[in-house]
Formats: sequence, structure tokens, C-alpha cells
Amino acid sequence: MAEKPISLTGIKPTGMPHLGNYLGAIRPALRKTEQYRGVYFIADYHALTTVFDGAQMRDQIERVAATWLALGLDPEKNLFYKQSDIPEIFELSWILGCFTPKGFMNRAHAYKAKVAANQEAGEELDANIGMGLYTYPLLMDADILLFGADIVPVGKDQKQHVEFARDVAQRFDQNYGTDVLKLPEPVIEESTDVIPGLDGRKMSKSYGNTIELFLPSKQLKKKVNKIVTNSQGVEEPKDPDTCQVFKLFSLFATPEESAALAARYREGGMGWGEAKNALYELLERVFDEPRRRFEELMANRSEIHAILRRGAERARDEAAPRMAEIRRLVGTDIYSA
Amino acid sequence: MAEKPISLTGIKPTGMPHLGNYLGAIRPALRKTEQYRGVYFIADYHALTTVFDGAQMRDQIERVAATWLALGLDPEKNLFYKQSDIPEIFELSWILGCFTPKGFMNRAHAYKAKVAANQEAGEELDANIGMGLYTYPLLMDADILLFGADIVPVGKDQKQHVEFARDVAQRFDQNYGTDVLKLPEPVIEESTDVIPGLDGRKMSKSYGNTIELFLPSKQLKKKVNKIVTNSQGVEEPKDPDTCQVFKLFSLFATPEESAALAARYREGGMGWGEAKNALYELLERVFDEPRRRFEELMANRSEIHAILRRGAERARDEAAPRMAEIRRLVGTDIYSA
Repeated sequence: MAEKPISLTGIKPTGMPHLGNYLGAIRPALRKTEQYRGVYFIADYHALTTVFDGAQMRDQIERVAATWLALGLDPEKNLFYKQSDIPEIFELSWILGCFTPKGFMNRAHAYKAKVAANQEAGEELDANIGMGLYTYPLLMDADILLFGADIVPVGKDQKQHVEFARDVAQRFDQNYGTDVLKLPEPVIEESTDVIPGLDGRKMSKSYGNTIELFLPSKQLKKKVNKIVTNSQGVEEPKDPDTCQVFKLFSLFATPEESAALAARYREGGMGWGEAKNALYELLERVFDEPRRRFEELMANRSEIHAILRRGAERARDEAAPRMAEIRRLVGTDIYSA
Repeated sequence: MAEKPISLTGIKPTGMPHLGNYLGAIRPALRKTEQYRGVYFIADYHALTTVFDGAQMRDQIERVAATWLALGLDPEKNLFYKQSDIPEIFELSWILGCFTPKGFMNRAHAYKAKVAANQEAGEELDANIGMGLYTYPLLMDADILLFGADIVPVGKDQKQHVEFARDVAQRFDQNYGTDVLKLPEPVIEESTDVIPGLDGRKMSKSYGNTIELFLPSKQLKKKVNKIVTNSQGVEEPKDPDTCQVFKLFSLFATPEESAALAARYREGGMGWGEAKNALYELLERVFDEPRRRFEELMANRSEIHAILRRGAERARDEAAPRMAEIRRLVGTDIYSA
């Protein structure tokens, strides 16, 4: 079925994505489809380690699905589904656990960070750590291996997950003398650009300095106006290279547009209001069509549902032969042996 | 659907059951159906923590299914399925993990025993411990809670599992303001009788002193003849109460038959051969019909398959409303909200 190699991307529905997410993760992932067949999934059960409210969970799933669709994810050319619609993932996760030394999970970054924080605070090492947090790398193994991913684009801190998946795939294949589980390659996304937030620090939810995607025009304008600038007056020439308004502008603009705005900075006579307005208008232009599509989807959620249902059907069909072979090897399929 | 309360029994397919298993676990479990609606399942994925050969796994699943059916498990009056046919169990297990403190698993008996053995051996505490062994109590939580078990008959060392299930059910229900997960009660099976093996110690696979169920006549006779007796001659009167041949006999015989054999012991003139022959003939009689049925099923495994398939269908139908409600509460079901 897949002629191009497969690139797999998990999307955790934990709140409205912002410009930093778009530039750092969403846009690069969507561009992968030039060389790869994309498998994109909403990792909703991963979000259950932190989201304990059903209405919030549902809303975040729909929002993130609508976001990616609005930004150009083609659910027909790619696979696009939500994890919770693929029961095979959870069965496979159990199987893989039987081939995973506990030591692996003990070394997982997220768990270790929690243990370190507990130690620091003088608490018991495992205090307030749930089994979801501890075992989620096993669920990721299944996410990755069920679909035969060739590559998994990840941030540096997630490379370990792909390495776990490789190792457990090897153990399974070796035990049963098979190659049914393909060894995935981690591809580190070198984010060359730090995307600045309103206060000039890296744009991040935890700093509260984000510009969310698809803000209505008025709110977007307000946000852009909040970007911190220096106290130079209108007449002074300005340095585009140290200005986060310009930085954000250049991440979305054509080279010609960037050059033109840089010239305005350097010649003097441009106030911060003008620069911010240029950024605002650019964002309006770039996201006008996606925002319209996003709003359309959010107003008509049954369309999101239909897309995800259809995606789940296709994903299960595609995973079925691999899962059948796994069950046959393990021996829990007594029926077709 | 269920008017009688539900009693749930997991059956791990780890080798051919013996007389000790029959008397200690199978017969009491089958008798539960007088007061309870029985839910019986073959816990095949639990066996994956130790059985890494597909053909062996398949054979053990079929063998244990045929055993219980041959001994009178009615798959129409009860639910009888194999765990691996119910994908909802694995999904629910993940969900429950998100409500389970890691400390619970740290305190699980089987895991603690392994850690203690490692400590004793001067190894790393988690050496050679797989995630299957560590997390299987989470899978048991799902086994139990998905089917709304009222009671779970367990040995003393498994009481903890039911307590874990109660606790996590409570946490889930409290978080979502629901009672969808029913709190199960552990019912400790007080095995009043120790069932002696060939050497007089408790009959147990680990002692190699077992008499397997459904042995062909010749093999059964050979096994029975191996039961250790004392060196008293034929003419000497014998004490039935200290003799394991008599003990085994009495566990299957009517009170009248036991009284008659006890008299033969006491009056003298009975050799061990005669006592053993009485036991052999009794076992032949008791297990004649079940053995025939067992052999019939093992010779025609598609009948086992059909029964288990039908059981899985009924089990999934029965679990469906509870699982749908769980998904709705958690929010991963965006479709029917």
C-alpha cells in the first residue's frame, strides 16, 4: 500500500496550539508529506494522564483535529485518526510490555524528572506519580510499531521514546523469528529558529506569552500590540535583527516582504505601531483561509467526526494484517493458526 | 440482564490442570453457578508474561478451554470467553492506569517477591523484571471492572488484586461523579483440604508430584501406582487417616464408598495395590465422561473455537454499554456526546 516511507506524528490534544507550535511542529510535520506518507494521530489517551474532565477532553480533541485540518492536513492522502478509535494499539501495548524490561521505564525522562522533583521536595520518590505517566512510553511503542513507521520526527527530548520502540521491536522480532515489527528511525527536528513570544522569551504556554492560532481579528490585533518593544521613538532608525516583531514577521513573510520591512526599520520614521500593524496584517492574510476553515469545522463538528471516523476505519484496515500476524505469532489467535 | 450477582473467574492457561487444580479451583468455581452468574475467561494475555512460544500458547489455551468445558462449564448459561478476544479490556486497562498511583504496583506481591529475590542475589532490584509482570494488576483491574463483577473468588495471595480494583474503581467513579464501575468483593476460597501429591506433599506443578486431569487409563494407573505409601505388609491393619491414597479417594467418593474403604484399611488383609486400584477405578469412573468430552474437543478444536468466538461476541455485547459510558465520561468518545 505505502510506496513512500511512512512518517508518523502524534498530536497530543492539550489545548489550543499557538504560533510557536505551528512553526516548530505543525508546519514541519505537514511538509513531511512531500517525501513521506504521513500518519497523523490525535493522541487522546495520552492526554488522559493530565486531562480528567470529559467535556474538556472532547473539546480539545475536536479543536486540535480542526486545527490540523484547517492548516492543510489532507485526510485522504494521509492517515488521520484518533488513537482511542484503534483498540489494537492498547492490545499491542500490553504485548510489547511483556518484552520490555522495567529498567527502560525507570530511565524514561518524564518519569525521572518527576522522581527528581519528589526527591528535591523531600517526598517519597514515587509520590503523586500515576501509572499513566510511568507506562506511557509503552503506549507510544504501540502507537509507532502498529503502523510500521519508518521515521518519527521528534524533539530531542523524545528521541528516547523511539529508541525504546526500536529496542522492544527487536526483542519481539528476535523471539519469534520475524520482522513483523519494523524498526523506526527517530528524526530530530532541529528547530533552528527560536520563536519569540510576547515578552521576547521563547513562545510557550508555560510562560503565558503565546499568540494562539485562529484568534478573531480583534483579539489577534490586541495580542500583537502586546509584543514588547524597546522605547525608541518614531523617528529613530531601528534594528530589525533584535526585534521580535520583525522576527515573527520574517517567519511568515516572503523574502521580499521581509527585506522591505527591514528597510523601513533602518530608515527611521517608522513607529512600533506601524511594525506591529504590518505583522498583524500579515498574520491575518496567512491565516485568513485556515481560520475560516477552522471556524467552519468547529461550527459543524459532525464534519470533524466524520473525517476521524473514516480515518479510523482506514487506519484499522491498514493495521489489521500486521496485528493479525502479531496475534498469530504470540499464539493468542487460536482461530486462524 | 444479570439477575443473579456476577462471579468472575480468570483461568490462566499455563499447562495441563491436575487433580489439585480441579479440587482447589475448578470444582469450587463451577459450583459458584448455583448462587451466581458465572463469568469465566481464559486469561491468555496474562500468560504472555511467561509463555513466549506461539504454538505452546495456542495449545495451552485450547487445552484449558476444553478442560473447563469437559468438566461442566456451560457456555450458554455463563459467559465464557478468552481475554484476548475482548479489546476493550486493554483500552480500559490504560484508562485505569491513569487513575492508579504507581505506589500500588510497587506494593504488588508478585513484583515485591521478585525484587526481594534480586536483593537476595545481589542483583539490581529491577533486574530481569518485565513490564508485563509489573503492570499485570492493571490488566486484572480491567478484567474485573469491565464486566461489573460482584465477587471475585481468589486465593489469599490474590486478595490484593481485588483491593486494587476496588480502589481504582472508586477513584474513577469519584472523579467523574458516576457509579459506572462497580466495586467488586474478594471472596477468599478457604481451601480446607490440602490435596496431596504423589509424594505426600501438596500437589503442585513445582514439586513434580501431580496427577494431570484426563490421563489415558494406562497412564493414570501408572501415576496412581506411584503414590508413596508406607512399608506395611498386606496383612497389617492400616490407618486411612494418614494415607494419601485414602485422602485422594475420599475427595471424590461418596461418604458410603469412603466408609467402606476405610473399613478395608482397618481390618487388615488389604495391600497397597488394592487401595491404589480402588482409587484408580474411582478416578476412571468420575472422569470417564469428562475425559471422553475432553478428547472429543481436543480432536475437534474448531468446536472449542466456535464456543469461544460465540462467548467473545456475547461478552463484548454485554460489556459494550459500560465501555461506552466510560468513554463518554472520559471524553475520548467525541461522537455520541
